[in-house]
Amino acid sequence: MKIGLDTMGGDFAPENEVLGAIEAFSLLKNDSRIVLFGDKTRIEEVCEKVGFDPANFEIVHTTEIIGMHDNPAKAFVQKPDSSMAMGFRALASRQIDGFASPGNTGAMMVGVMYTVKPIEGIARPCISSTYPLVNGKTGLLLDVGLNADCKPENLYQNAMLGALYAKWAMGLENPRVGLMNIGEEAAKGNLLVKAAYDLMKDSKDFTFAGNIEGYDFMTGKKADVVVCDGFVGNIILKLAESFYRIAGSLGIDKEFFNRLNYETYGGTPVLGVNAPVIIGHGGSSPKAIKNMVLLTENVINAQLVKRVKDALSENNY
Amino acid sequence: MKIGLDTMGGDFAPENEVLGAIEAFSLLKNDSRIVLFGDKTRIEEVCEKVGFDPANFEIVHTTEIIGMHDNPAKAFVQKPDSSMAMGFRALASRQIDGFASPGNTGAMMVGVMYTVKPIEGIARPCISSTYPLVNGKTGLLLDVGLNADCKPENLYQNAMLGALYAKWAMGLENPRVGLMNIGEEAAKGNLLVKAAYDLMKDSKDFTFAGNIEGYDFMTGKKADVVVCDGFVGNIILKLAESFYRIAGSLGIDKEFFNRLNYETYGGTPVLGVNAPVIIGHGGSSPKAIKNMVLLTENVINAQLVKRVKDALSENNY
Repeated sequence: MKIGLDTMGGDFAPENEVLGAIEAFSLLKNDSRIVLFGDKTRIEEVCEKVGFDPANFEIVHTTEIIGMHDNPAKAFVQKPDSSMAMGFRALASRQIDGFASPGNTGAMMVGVMYTVKPIEGIARPCISSTYPLVNGKTGLLLDVGLNADCKPENLYQNAMLGALYAKWAMGLENPRVGLMNIGEEAAKGNLLVKAAYDLMKDSKDFTFAGNIEGYDFMTGKKADVVVCDGFVGNIILKLAESFYRIAGSLGIDKEFFNRLNYETYGGTPVLGVNAPVIIGHGGSSPKAIKNMVLLTENVINAQLVKRVKDALSENNY
Repeated sequence: MKIGLDTMGGDFAPENEVLGAIEAFSLLKNDSRIVLFGDKTRIEEVCEKVGFDPANFEIVHTTEIIGMHDNPAKAFVQKPDSSMAMGFRALASRQIDGFASPGNTGAMMVGVMYTVKPIEGIARPCISSTYPLVNGKTGLLLDVGLNADCKPENLYQNAMLGALYAKWAMGLENPRVGLMNIGEEAAKGNLLVKAAYDLMKDSKDFTFAGNIEGYDFMTGKKADVVVCDGFVGNIILKLAESFYRIAGSLGIDKEFFNRLNYETYGGTPVLGVNAPVIIGHGGSSPKAIKNMVLLTENVINAQLVKRVKDALSENNY
């Protein structure tokens, strides 16, 4: 398989991207190959600095960069030879099997929607994030920021996408899907989640675990997958991540808190679209890039597009 | 002043309530007096068990109990002689200056709305909670669960109420009010917060600190007061509180994490109503009750009703 990586979009490009790709290189399966999109000369310079043979990568030379301050809607038209635009074109034409970038998130989403496109039947793709549970396992939260305003049907599709991701990318045989709420009872919540609860309660598309409160989010006792709109999910994710920094500032060195560091999960997969796309933090370290590349390989292997299409065709949904 | 306490509504009533009141007794100012609403015999039994003279309290004998499973809307009609109903009547008729209860939250809110009532001009009272900041100071979050569905105007009033609470009850001279959001830029967020941002950005009623992300919530670097709807606030509060338990389970004993325990702040003040009302956790320990009583005294002293009325009459709002 071919794992595409945008090496020019991050805050520390291309150094961190190339160093992260080098770290990932030796950890990938035999048939996996990393395709770097970016300035060939600069990529090779980073490789040479650490004594790594750039021939271990495929390099697609690009001449433009979509930066953090570029207008997401216009960037692809204005910069067709950018690393991000080239990456998405390669993904859409199946020259690569997945694409990861720590670049401009808005532009990434524009790229997804205009090149890869949502899977037919999915109204709103979403982005997801894994997070550590106190019991040592891993949970999945979605949407973590793509759709700040959702309809109940969007939450239902998030639940379905999350369950499929948890099963095929995280290896959970029968993931329990919880609905983020402010109480356990069915009648709790705002208008959105009350309506979503009604849609979910008898679902045959996933195992519905009912409402999840903030107390339960990190315990994993009630749910493996937690569903919410992108506004709530983004706040939860960033608040949880802030505890990594807090723990660090207090001199706490515990595995659980260290796992709250975004570097350990590398990036957020875009779910519900026709190819694996992973969005990373703009300030990604080499470690974060390494984990993003490994995550991309994992998501490619999970064959989620096929899983989602199969699920949609079963018509339970 | 007279601080009313419902001793019958909590999960461990009246024992924890009376023990907490006894703990608070010696910490109150000279002119403060605790008025206990509940079964006189049972209250006296708890006092006697620990060798405390019940004559230190005023006791209003009540014969009924509004429990956690009573229908909030019907409870006051069905149980007019309950400790909660008697307390609210005493509050509305100014026999007491504030009322606190760890009982049925829904019933508490019905009691507030039908006896004490919202301050004229306040569309939606809300509930607030203080929380620890990493810098050792204390932040205020509101709404933490009363109004799961809000309009922009409600968030604006939350901001005003929060600023007044922070100034008069928390002693912050010029509290900075942040809007909970998923990015710092003005255009970020869902429809609700984008509209709320527009209302707040030039406010003369409070110092608007702009958007606050999950990362910033516990740092206090950008805001002293954080405003959101009750759905988001309840999730944030419970998620933050869960880290107290997580820290405990990992053997971490740090002041910051210990302060995340709800017991340390005792209860959530209802803001925007015509008298001080504090809602506590159903499972309140004696320590939590003690802090709830002290909080009630503090809120009474802050004269928030007057402050809110003054602010409303200034017509900035």
